Amino acid sequence: MSRPGPTTRARVRELSGGTARDRRDTLATEEPLEVRVQSPEGVRTVAITMRTPGHDFDLAAGFLHGEGLVEPGRITAIGYCTDDDVEPEARYNVVTVRIDGPLPDLPGLDRHFLTSSACGVCGSASLAALRHRCAPVVADELRITPEVLYGLPGKLRAAQGVFGKTGGLQAAGLFTAGGEPVAAREDVGRHNAVDKLVGWSALTGRLPLESHLLMVSGRASYEIMQKALAARVPVVCAVGAPSSLAVDLARDFGMTLVGFLRGERCNVYAGMDRVVTG
Amino acid sequence: MSRPGPTTRARVRELSGGTARDRRDTLATEEPLEVRVQSPEGVRTVAITMRTPGHDFDLAAGFLHGEGLVEPGRITAIGYCTDDDVEPEARYNVVTVRIDGPLPDLPGLDRHFLTSSACGVCGSASLAALRHRCAPVVADELRITPEVLYGLPGKLRAAQGVFGKTGGLQAAGLFTAGGEPVAAREDVGRHNAVDKLVGWSALTGRLPLESHLLMVSGRASYEIMQKALAARVPVVCAVGAPSSLAVDLARDFGMTLVGFLRGERCNVYAGMDRVVTG
Repeated sequence: MSRPGPTTRARVRELSGGTARDRRDTLATEEPLEVRVQSPEGVRTVAITMRTPGHDFDLAAGFLHGEGLVEPGRITAIGYCTDDDVEPEARYNVVTVRIDGPLPDLPGLDRHFLTSSACGVCGSASLAALRHRCAPVVADELRITPEVLYGLPGKLRAAQGVFGKTGGLQAAGLFTAGGEPVAAREDVGRHNAVDKLVGWSALTGRLPLESHLLMVSGRASYEIMQKALAARVPVVCAVGAPSSLAVDLARDFGMTLVGFLRGERCNVYAGMDRVVTG
Repeated sequence: MSRPGPTTRARVRELSGGTARDRRDTLATEEPLEVRVQSPEGVRTVAITMRTPGHDFDLAAGFLHGEGLVEPGRITAIGYCTDDDVEPEARYNVVTVRIDGPLPDLPGLDRHFLTSSACGVCGSASLAALRHRCAPVVADELRITPEVLYGLPGKLRAAQGVFGKTGGLQAAGLFTAGGEPVAAREDVGRHNAVDKLVGWSALTGRLPLESHLLMVSGRASYEIMQKALAARVPVVCAVGAPSSLAVDLARDFGMTLVGFLRGERCNVYAGMDRVVTG
């Protein structure tokens, strides 16, 4: 069986008013991906997530970096599964990341698992736990204009291939402070597009991303902001709304957070000094 | 400290063209929720997920049902945390579900963790694993008209309180086969709105939902379809696109899947016989 592609063809019945028409349509592919980490100590599965096939090595590296499990410098090789006990059609759904040194501790029950802290499970405790592994972003001298911000959604859409055909994908784009596109990634999974972008940056030696902007096609959640912080991105922009905890994280860690970026309008929720007007 | 609400006030700088204006804005609250299951055997944390506070008991019951961990009939009580070692501000972020009988097996690393099968990690294996705990939906005689479908997005929006104020939430609505609204729930988390709806249905004795329609404001993923299947919902409608695996699941389990439901248009990807035209 061949490697799964980012899109899949399907038969669909299109209804418009009272009429029906059968045709072929293109869907975003969704398949599970298992991420394994292998060291001289052994091999361990650290995540299984639904994703759109493509840029799988970037996704694995970005996930491991964003969760604080494996620094990119420790990675010696990344490959698809070659185990005899895995059927051929599943081999492209298992990525093994080889590292030096000890295996990372397993993450918790969920990608949202938060280290337990004295105060229990709450937003402030999540931010406190994050402070143990991430310092605030500095980038004090970075300045961006509203015109640069207003241009980002169109540039992100222009970089999206699959999305245009299916409407089914989340996108994330990396830009210079002047708004020049650096890379863009897409995925059915809410956070995978950001993992793919950060993983690509890590594997090509671009981290930290201190002079860059990140733009996402959906909303800005705690998890998106946490991944951006780990990659040291000072400015995060979203087409949709930010959550309360995304704004708290941005303020605590010196990040600029822009939401509802559409047309010539947006809201700046944190780090307003970096956006110069007038 | 008081119980967290579904919305949070924040200061925001609104940019429009070259002008800036500071004002107050309303955000969707995002806080972690820990779900614990307690039986005569002991107590176990089964998930920590980011969610919008509100309907937390429904979320816990719906999550446990959708993942096949706890059947609603086994639940004897649900409450917020009363542990002395949890600080007051975190108590509303821990829900304990009390059950009779043995504790469920812990879920895997992730909500997407899939039982390993002979064929390895792939979409077909995910569907095969699901067949072990879910039979296909029957509902052979259920018929719906395009007019009923076209009316659902407006009725879902009308039922959304917080969403209208922030644009920051995913919504899910339950409707009768004739399109009458039964209940609606909202959340920042992608699947939590569906968990809240299914949990409410479970706790009020409405399961199985064999004569109902489910409508979601976003896309239709494998996980959304899996939760609908566990609740026995025969028809799932989405404003956005379905993924390839969502369509495969719908076809394998006899479900009707409608996507891109906007205005007087939609695409039917599976179970087309239930939609009558002309």
